[in-house]
Amino acid sequence: MIKVGIVGATGYTGAELVRLLLGHPQAELVAVTSRSYQGQKLSSIFPNFLGVTDLVCTGLDPAELARECDVVFVALPHGHSVALAEILVAAGKKVVDLGADFRLQDREIYGQWYQEEPAAAELLSQAVYGLPELHREKIREANLIANPGCYPTSSILALAPLVKEKLIDLSSMIIDAKSGVSGAGRSVALGSHYAEVNESFKAYKVANHRHTPEIEQELSGLAGQDIRLSFTPHLVPMTRGILATIYANPASGEELSQARLTELYASFYREEKFVQVLDGQFPQTNWVAGTNNCQLAVTFDRRANRIIILSAIDNLVKGAAGQAIQNMNIMLGIAEDEGLQLISRYL
Amino acid sequence: MIKVGIVGATGYTGAELVRLLLGHPQAELVAVTSRSYQGQKLSSIFPNFLGVTDLVCTGLDPAELARECDVVFVALPHGHSVALAEILVAAGKKVVDLGADFRLQDREIYGQWYQEEPAAAELLSQAVYGLPELHREKIREANLIANPGCYPTSSILALAPLVKEKLIDLSSMIIDAKSGVSGAGRSVALGSHYAEVNESFKAYKVANHRHTPEIEQELSGLAGQDIRLSFTPHLVPMTRGILATIYANPASGEELSQARLTELYASFYREEKFVQVLDGQFPQTNWVAGTNNCQLAVTFDRRANRIIILSAIDNLVKGAAGQAIQNMNIMLGIAEDEGLQLISRYL
Amino acid sequence: MIKVGIVGATGYTGAELVRLLLGHPQAELVAVTSRSYQGQKLSSIFPNFLGVTDLVCTGLDPAELARECDVVFVALPHGHSVALAEILVAAGKKVVDLGADFRLQDREIYGQWYQEEPAAAELLSQAVYGLPELHREKIREANLIANPGCYPTSSILALAPLVKEKLIDLSSMIIDAKSGVSGAGRSVALGSHYAEVNESFKAYKVANHRHTPEIEQELSGLAGQDIRLSFTPHLVPMTRGILATIYANPASGEELSQARLTELYASFYREEKFVQVLDGQFPQTNWVAGTNNCQLAVTFDRRANRIIILSAIDNLVKGAAGQAIQNMNIMLGIAEDEGLQLISRYL
Amino acid sequence: MIKVGIVGATGYTGAELVRLLLGHPQAELVAVTSRSYQGQKLSSIFPNFLGVTDLVCTGLDPAELARECDVVFVALPHGHSVALAEILVAAGKKVVDLGADFRLQDREIYGQWYQEEPAAAELLSQAVYGLPELHREKIREANLIANPGCYPTSSILALAPLVKEKLIDLSSMIIDAKSGVSGAGRSVALGSHYAEVNESFKAYKVANHRHTPEIEQELSGLAGQDIRLSFTPHLVPMTRGILATIYANPASGEELSQARLTELYASFYREEKFVQVLDGQFPQTNWVAGTNNCQLAVTFDRRANRIIILSAIDNLVKGAAGQAIQNMNIMLGIAEDEGLQLISRYL
Repeated sequence: MIKVGIVGATGYTGAELVRLLLGHPQAELVAVTSRSYQGQKLSSIFPNFLGVTDLVCTGLDPAELARECDVVFVALPHGHSVALAEILVAAGKKVVDLGADFRLQDREIYGQWYQEEPAAAELLSQAVYGLPELHREKIREANLIANPGCYPTSSILALAPLVKEKLIDLSSMIIDAKSGVSGAGRSVALGSHYAEVNESFKAYKVANHRHTPEIEQELSGLAGQDIRLSFTPHLVPMTRGILATIYANPASGEELSQARLTELYASFYREEKFVQVLDGQFPQTNWVAGTNNCQLAVTFDRRANRIIILSAIDNLVKGAAGQAIQNMNIMLGIAEDEGLQLISRYL
Repeated sequence: MIKVGIVGATGYTGAELVRLLLGHPQAELVAVTSRSYQGQKLSSIFPNFLGVTDLVCTGLDPAELARECDVVFVALPHGHSVALAEILVAAGKKVVDLGADFRLQDREIYGQWYQEEPAAAELLSQAVYGLPELHREKIREANLIANPGCYPTSSILALAPLVKEKLIDLSSMIIDAKSGVSGAGRSVALGSHYAEVNESFKAYKVANHRHTPEIEQELSGLAGQDIRLSFTPHLVPMTRGILATIYANPASGEELSQARLTELYASFYREEKFVQVLDGQFPQTNWVAGTNNCQLAVTFDRRANRIIILSAIDNLVKGAAGQAIQNMNIMLGIAEDEGLQLISRYL
Repeated sequence: MIKVGIVGATGYTGAELVRLLLGHPQAELVAVTSRSYQGQKLSSIFPNFLGVTDLVCTGLDPAELARECDVVFVALPHGHSVALAEILVAAGKKVVDLGADFRLQDREIYGQWYQEEPAAAELLSQAVYGLPELHREKIREANLIANPGCYPTSSILALAPLVKEKLIDLSSMIIDAKSGVSGAGRSVALGSHYAEVNESFKAYKVANHRHTPEIEQELSGLAGQDIRLSFTPHLVPMTRGILATIYANPASGEELSQARLTELYASFYREEKFVQVLDGQFPQTNWVAGTNNCQLAVTFDRRANRIIILSAIDNLVKGAAGQAIQNMNIMLGIAEDEGLQLISRYL
Repeated sequence: MIKVGIVGATGYTGAELVRLLLGHPQAELVAVTSRSYQGQKLSSIFPNFLGVTDLVCTGLDPAELARECDVVFVALPHGHSVALAEILVAAGKKVVDLGADFRLQDREIYGQWYQEEPAAAELLSQAVYGLPELHREKIREANLIANPGCYPTSSILALAPLVKEKLIDLSSMIIDAKSGVSGAGRSVALGSHYAEVNESFKAYKVANHRHTPEIEQELSGLAGQDIRLSFTPHLVPMTRGILATIYANPASGEELSQARLTELYASFYREEKFVQVLDGQFPQTNWVAGTNNCQLAVTFDRRANRIIILSAIDNLVKGAAGQAIQNMNIMLGIAEDEGLQLISRYL
């Protein structure tokens, strides 16, 4: 059994890691840390775990974690993972960081968007961006995974086929993304206060969200040239799920058709266990809720000569905890979908 | 007092017309028709009206309506208004049709999108597209108003300043719109069944929604040239409200800035009572819920050289019943905001 | 015009007071105070008020309030009203306190339930419990109103006819009440965090809620004897509204029937503008949302020989701000429903 | 592998049976029938099953079902199971009926509440009421299970310890139950139309719900005497879950205490895998969502001398599909929680 620890187990991503790891046939959850709930049973904080686990939250002790665990998932706000990851990696452990500290390889860009000191170059250079559908081989060799953000996961998977095949005008990409409220985390704030978000819909951080450079980094890598795009996040009055609606214009000279696009996506993702290309239906967030799946549909808007891609994920699973476990599985050489063969409820 | 009738009073648009007209100081609601609830009191169908009105629903009798009413609001599914409007207009009455039958002036385009026979050319030519911010003078003279769709209202108001001033590439417009479920009406259907839409988010009728030609018609008129754009509607798990997120590229050669855009919108709508241009905030649907307001915010995405406009309305008010009453007020020469000085609840 | 001030204007009750007072034909809102938002425009905190008011929040200055206002609404957490009320009442002003500081006339009971020092006996003795349907005459003479809690309003109105007529076993009353989340206020807390309450239902403070003694005080007063009852509050994943389901057994020897109960309620509330006794329908919270109405329905469960009363109010209106204004109207001798002729949206 | 069929697979209970059976290690789902979706793939009706199953819905052919299946789950509206069950049982198959046709052993009572002909006495006499916590031994021997209703499951489990121990006044029981909207099924109806139920709360079928006699039958059986009680169902604007709040008075002469009640419940359910007695917390529906668990908490309201029990289940799992599978497991002599070791998401 793989000994696994979770740092920051009492946020929503932490709770989802707990749920998935408790059901993982080859993993044993041995340590859960929490600053706020130290000394309390996980099952009293999250009573859905009653009868399933008796784990107690502890404070964060990196040395102790290194002793107990083979793999550590770090689910902390950005800026808090670097020192810990350094210790664990040095101790020969596998680390999956679910925050933003290792996602941007360009330290200057990190500084611009996060207004903080980026991770040291050497440690950063060891981090692999953990989107298996693009970087599986590197993940296999990695000890430190920068687990992608939720919006980037849905966006990059949706655009990768078009960018890689250079079928689109690379300056035309627009990502209009909508997320459930759990994406804002479990820390109380007026912006997640029930009556403030219920029965309302809004955009936020327009042209200014920190996931933008992450998406641009990955698509630029695929394209082999610098990409700038527009990314607009919105808040949906529901708990889970992201739907991204993505627009791009055909590259000059390209004759596109619905059939060609459908075939491109189907073939690009044919071997992928967690990417489902729909044909004749548009994805809904509840169809992937609770699972590590990404559902895609591509539409050619012939009238306006434009491509529209819809991409749905569960922000807490493929957008966070599930993908983190997928990365762990790859790093450890076990089946990529071990512990992730999740069947979604229809409702 | 203006004698007013509502045909189709027991749908959601009808119920909203009832609410607003009961509070209109110069209007008296004298007739409400309903196919399904004939003979029943409005206050037993909509018990929120208990103690406010004792009106009873009747069947539809055009001659009787013409006798009793000065103004008739028709809130029927498309395809059902033409014959009725003909009678009422011939009888010298003012008619506001809240369906689609008179919205598209090009009968061929109507046929393509609605797969039905359009209204006769002569009657159609008398209809005025009832978006007061664009067509106030024509509305003043009209007897037959084609009340705009909910999506077109939010979209056209958002794009009008840019299109009129020719600041944007007219082939670059993308409207990503999100609506509450009440927009689908009160007729039962699996797509509005609670557990099917709750806690989920989806797009529908991608590149294929009937409001597209309506938006194109109005913007083409403003631009003086044919416009094609992409329009994607989405369903939000909430009851009321539309937020449209709209993208356009600057026209070639235009040097845009946040300041210039903000000033453009503020000045374009300075005299409008129902359009509020926000500065430093992004609109939320609950801020306009229950009112006839449209809240706009324009953002210049300097990095991607793109304009992003957010537009929020209440689909049942500015997107339907409220705008219909605004049109009535203009036609009758009374204050445009009579009966529409509505203060939204914060929550 | 009556000059009105609101202390604590930026909570949910405060926002509702603002909405209703801005629409009150005889009131002028001249002062709004807020500790957290001092110096900010109300319309930037609550953008639904854009274009409606330019009022700016100030800090709390009792002397200044006394100078400017005829009536002051105090919407502060319990424990913060006493000193302020003392000054204002001494200055000859009318005060409506929407907190709990003056609701319990028995200072010992207040101490037991609130673990705080109660108001001084003299000031307390001037306070009138502001449920107009029971205490209209005393309210007329009062300068200090203890505005009832939301749960007590719905519960006392539902039980008053039975208790007054002594038709029930006074030891058998059970109040099973359900409230929307806005009842918990605008202060951020995990218990009002969106993802914690959305899509879930729970009871809280079982057999232990502070509204219990308030209900018992009023019903005991009506009965002329001490009453103990069970009160269980629940949290509903919605923003507004309270539904109380209330059970009582017939008094020994009483022969009850549906007809007798219906007639009792209809006749008890015949003259009341804000209490609606339904016949043949059960109330729903959205039928009263946004209004000062209480909808009641009484059912005789013949099989089990038990009376079941359903009572619906909007917790922020009849349960708080609306009733406060009703009390103001009575104190000032103007029409009781002035500013409160609100028509609810159906949805 | 156990060959399993589902009749009526495209309702919400059917979809939940599919989800659970696809994850059951010893079951193989071989047949799914649907009147409305005949010939369609399950995964196109419920796209959450994409990539998980390729099953196609067929029409209902009892003889074919009898050939293919060892166990058949019947998820049809009441009145439609009798003929089918007769054939299957005669063919030596195990049948779990999730409708009401076999729940009431008294044919006269069935007739009164359902206004339909009850099942023939002989077949009815073979049916066992499938609440394993009460009837495990009989279930073991049964071929025909009447799977309990959702409300009865939550209510009977909550009251059984008190009734069995005769600690309460048997005429004092009141069940105030609240259910998510999925309980009303997938057939479209105004009462499940999104905008009609969203943001509202109501009671329905007060003193008149068909689950009443089912609860009374089981509790009467436990008590050894006829019981009449009050049962009030309510609709919560959420998809899944039931919370029942249950009141009873201590039997005359009984000296109750919190400690004694807590101990009674803990001990009564000590060996039960799916009943969790909370201590110091009140259950929430989302803590059991997706699982076969029932969470109970008992409170002694000392002031009012009353017992309050809270009981939470997922109406589609312990209230329907999960319990059905639990019954199958018992009938077939496999581990009772096989396929039911479900870990709930926290949100």
